[in-house]
Amino acid sequence: MTAKQGSVARWIADFAQALRTPEQSAWDRLFMPECYWRDFLAFTWNIVTLEGVTAIAAMVEEQAPAIAATALAPDDPALPMTDETQGWFTFETATARCRGHVQLEDGRARVLLTAMIELVGHEEQAGARRPVGVAHHAAKGRRTWLDQRQEEARTLGYAEQPYCLIVGGGQNGLMLAARLKRLSVPTLVIDGFERPGDVWRKRYKSLYLHDPIYLDHFPYLPFPDHWPLYTSKDKMADWLEAYARVMELNIWHETLCAGARYDATAGVWEVTVERSGETRTLRPKHLVLATGLSGAKHVPAIPGADSFAGQQYHSSDHAGGKAMEGKNCVVIGASNSAHDICVDLWENDAHVTMIQRSPTIVVRAETMRTFSDALPYAQPGIATEFADLMMATTPFRMRYATERDMTDALRQIDADFYARLERSGFLLSHGVDGTGFLMAYHRRASGYYIDVGASDLIARGEIAICHGEIAAIERDGIRMEDGSFLPADLIVYATGYRPMQEWVSELISADVARAIGPCWGLGSGTKGDPGPWEGELRNMWKPTAQEALWFQGGNLMQARFHSLHLALQIKARCERLATPIHRPAPSSMAKRNEGALT
Amino acid sequence: MTAKQGSVARWIADFAQALRTPEQSAWDRLFMPECYWRDFLAFTWNIVTLEGVTAIAAMVEEQAPAIAATALAPDDPALPMTDETQGWFTFETATARCRGHVQLEDGRARVLLTAMIELVGHEEQAGARRPVGVAHHAAKGRRTWLDQRQEEARTLGYAEQPYCLIVGGGQNGLMLAARLKRLSVPTLVIDGFERPGDVWRKRYKSLYLHDPIYLDHFPYLPFPDHWPLYTSKDKMADWLEAYARVMELNIWHETLCAGARYDATAGVWEVTVERSGETRTLRPKHLVLATGLSGAKHVPAIPGADSFAGQQYHSSDHAGGKAMEGKNCVVIGASNSAHDICVDLWENDAHVTMIQRSPTIVVRAETMRTFSDALPYAQPGIATEFADLMMATTPFRMRYATERDMTDALRQIDADFYARLERSGFLLSHGVDGTGFLMAYHRRASGYYIDVGASDLIARGEIAICHGEIAAIERDGIRMEDGSFLPADLIVYATGYRPMQEWVSELISADVARAIGPCWGLGSGTKGDPGPWEGELRNMWKPTAQEALWFQGGNLMQARFHSLHLALQIKARCERLATPIHRPAPSSMAKRNEGALT
Repeated sequence: MTAKQGSVARWIADFAQALRTPEQSAWDRLFMPECYWRDFLAFTWNIVTLEGVTAIAAMVEEQAPAIAATALAPDDPALPMTDETQGWFTFETATARCRGHVQLEDGRARVLLTAMIELVGHEEQAGARRPVGVAHHAAKGRRTWLDQRQEEARTLGYAEQPYCLIVGGGQNGLMLAARLKRLSVPTLVIDGFERPGDVWRKRYKSLYLHDPIYLDHFPYLPFPDHWPLYTSKDKMADWLEAYARVMELNIWHETLCAGARYDATAGVWEVTVERSGETRTLRPKHLVLATGLSGAKHVPAIPGADSFAGQQYHSSDHAGGKAMEGKNCVVIGASNSAHDICVDLWENDAHVTMIQRSPTIVVRAETMRTFSDALPYAQPGIATEFADLMMATTPFRMRYATERDMTDALRQIDADFYARLERSGFLLSHGVDGTGFLMAYHRRASGYYIDVGASDLIARGEIAICHGEIAAIERDGIRMEDGSFLPADLIVYATGYRPMQEWVSELISADVARAIGPCWGLGSGTKGDPGPWEGELRNMWKPTAQEALWFQGGNLMQARFHSLHLALQIKARCERLATPIHRPAPSSMAKRNEGALT
Repeated sequence: MTAKQGSVARWIADFAQALRTPEQSAWDRLFMPECYWRDFLAFTWNIVTLEGVTAIAAMVEEQAPAIAATALAPDDPALPMTDETQGWFTFETATARCRGHVQLEDGRARVLLTAMIELVGHEEQAGARRPVGVAHHAAKGRRTWLDQRQEEARTLGYAEQPYCLIVGGGQNGLMLAARLKRLSVPTLVIDGFERPGDVWRKRYKSLYLHDPIYLDHFPYLPFPDHWPLYTSKDKMADWLEAYARVMELNIWHETLCAGARYDATAGVWEVTVERSGETRTLRPKHLVLATGLSGAKHVPAIPGADSFAGQQYHSSDHAGGKAMEGKNCVVIGASNSAHDICVDLWENDAHVTMIQRSPTIVVRAETMRTFSDALPYAQPGIATEFADLMMATTPFRMRYATERDMTDALRQIDADFYARLERSGFLLSHGVDGTGFLMAYHRRASGYYIDVGASDLIARGEIAICHGEIAAIERDGIRMEDGSFLPADLIVYATGYRPMQEWVSELISADVARAIGPCWGLGSGTKGDPGPWEGELRNMWKPTAQEALWFQGGNLMQARFHSLHLALQIKARCERLATPIHRPAPSSMAKRNEGALT
């Protein structure tokens, strides 16, 4: 430990002492009045941000005896985010090895992060714990790797029930399955498509990842470093396929989940699946919905749609605009997929109109990249997993200010771009409170466009913009409420997805959907993200109101980071470890709700 | 630089000075009388070990002006193999960035390693040089990654000729192809099997890699760290398939190479290939034979073989002993595959006899593992590529002593094992000069068994050993020269492979085969490895007597390390860089030949 770390080390020692006698401890001497403790499982077996000393004291008093945190010690002073006022530390609980980071002000914590890293005695079978793989002696009836792999694939879901069933074989399902595999939790993934990666492969031709590659690594198998900065959907599809094979994941393809019922007495799900024409019942102990942030496609009911003579489909069914040369194409919606599909149609010489029904946040990918380049992920010598932790040190409420600053910076850098776009008639937003696209992503995963070319076409009038509401669809086009008419050979509904909650209602029951409430969103009280304030994404990667039902979703960074948390929770239950969950009192958070918007 | 590095730094400075005026330099002040300079391309555009001051002075005088080594500077003192008498350094030549390592005795060099790392101005397109992958603006006629990938696969070998053609899609072909891909050298791999990995997949069921996993990494995409210590052939097959896909290698499967002719005037090969029934001529500038160390299967002509009523095949065609329960099986040969097949047959309840025609070196895999665990590859914090360089600091002649020491240690550790094995009648060897299996591998890639279980079966009499020569094969078995008869339902010829030279003769011409001479082997003057002494593996990964013909082979470690060297040589030619080759005078090496065995 260096001298500069003295105050941090002192705080850690005081904190360790306070944990020993939580009810007698003066938490307001350890924490600032406005303070945050963000915990990933370590203390709460939950993903929560506690706000304020009262919430923190209540949590510690409830949890400390069972959690039994010990061996708190400052981590390597050479780590990033280590100086006079902040530093990393390690500790152990009754069940796990954990890391922490504290940011001090005047000797008290303003922000504390605690995160579970691995379960003691149930570590991943990797590195020094890797299996030998073969016995170096002859034995009759010995089975090779292939024998065992084939038997596992053959029996799982038949002779042997999976402990965990994951619905959805995109990156979220595969990353979680890979983590559970390394933890020896029998896991089956079911997916509607024919092969891994089809969730990317079958989307529109021009789709590329919007995040640079260093944000996108999968657990355990980093992309090789010649990988392009931005990945095409087809290359990502191939990666998913290779990943599933190399990580030996058990996947049933062309399999749909038709219904699920939880037997609370037996602690088992009954999940009805349809696999290549056959209906089967699976009986996993845990059910993970990993189909993305949302449920099924949302196509608004518009009068007259049945009478339309041309083609019409949801944006997720847009395979490419090849046959649309010279045709009139109308895209309803103005978020990412609407823009990308407009570009694709324009590149195929269609006449393209976008119907924008509400203002859209736009950020330029090129400008975002300069910000991404400054993130820990892009710095040499910082492991991806550690960068994930660094990013996690800022709780959502504190991100309002940083996101607003970033949005302001983007508006300044790209002032000319935004001015041109607005002159074209495009309704531009920077978020209801000026916090831009990242907060919009966390609030409702919609309402923004990361510009990779469409905005320039809009500014140049190559993609026409139409505002207002649709009155009806007629045989040859769209009638707007103001009476104007848009002739159309193709209508693309880039109108998003239905809330996950609706799908839960159909799949399980309305009661369960109601108990769980919305998935995703922070409870910011903004459009599409009703309060009360939660401070973390609702229901994602953590216990829900329905025992043994979990949600795994988000972009590649989130899928990577949080699949660890969900895997640890499922493994702990598989091993029957005590997992005392702390759920912050809703009132304590709700009181502070209006602050979320300031 | 630390104080302990003073003498090394002084030597590097003196060496740099001497390189500037090679003809006036007193090389015997820089090098010990018995000294070695091992060079990988940096100074010689060749892979050579120069032995003695005379050979070194001759090389430098010939090469120094064109090579123009500059900026010699001690490397990071924190690197392994850095102390008062040894250390790493970096330098640049007219074309390349290089690394070196020197081992001093009394201030003079006993061993010098110099190795090319990358070509200046032609670096791999990776890391900071990675491609962006997509243009963030709309443009008509824009092609996606998939468009480009598919076009490349479609046109290479048809509309566009590959610059480099690699025959053989095993790990050697794929690793080299991956390196050339990163260097933007248009490369096509042809392979006889249906899909990548079949070279492993189609071998006998019980095959596992004999080297622990940390020796086996492929370039650019390390195995995930849960990978078992020993890899099954089927898992390795899957890895090859995933690797080929992820690295975007261009491979024609089910394609055989029928003949090749070099047009020296045009500097182009005419290679006849048969692809799915179609005969095509490819016109690459460079031809790489990457089919392994050897040519086609060797099956000795034994009188009466045609009259045999049972099954008979070469060891490489042994798919598994499933149908052999209760049958008499005779395996001719006593090297690795012979042993492995005997075990497989025994595990399938066959009656197994091994015909051992000459003594075999045996080492136990378990014991070898303890030695492997001490290698740099197994140490945390040492990158695989750097470990490769560390291993390369010992020239072959110096390995005689270390390998003899290791063999002595193995004999002591496993004394009981060896005693039991010999008591069973098995003819045991430790190498003609006691240097054990690793020297045997480098001399003739044969004559040893890495024991993974067969030796115990032999010691217990579960696998019978038969000595002597075969007189004839009869209808129901094998008649030995001593008149004894071995009844057989199955005969497996584990009799190795024909020399690569023979295949070159058939494929290209007898003249070219004669000019090239033997591939592999050090010229040790021992059985299967005739002199003169070469000090490096003959014709492997370096210029041969035939312009634009190259050999890529060896185990996974060698494939990884030396594919870099071969890729750099081909890339340099592709970019028309000067590549002045130094070929040591044979006489200077031959004179020292007898020393090789001492």
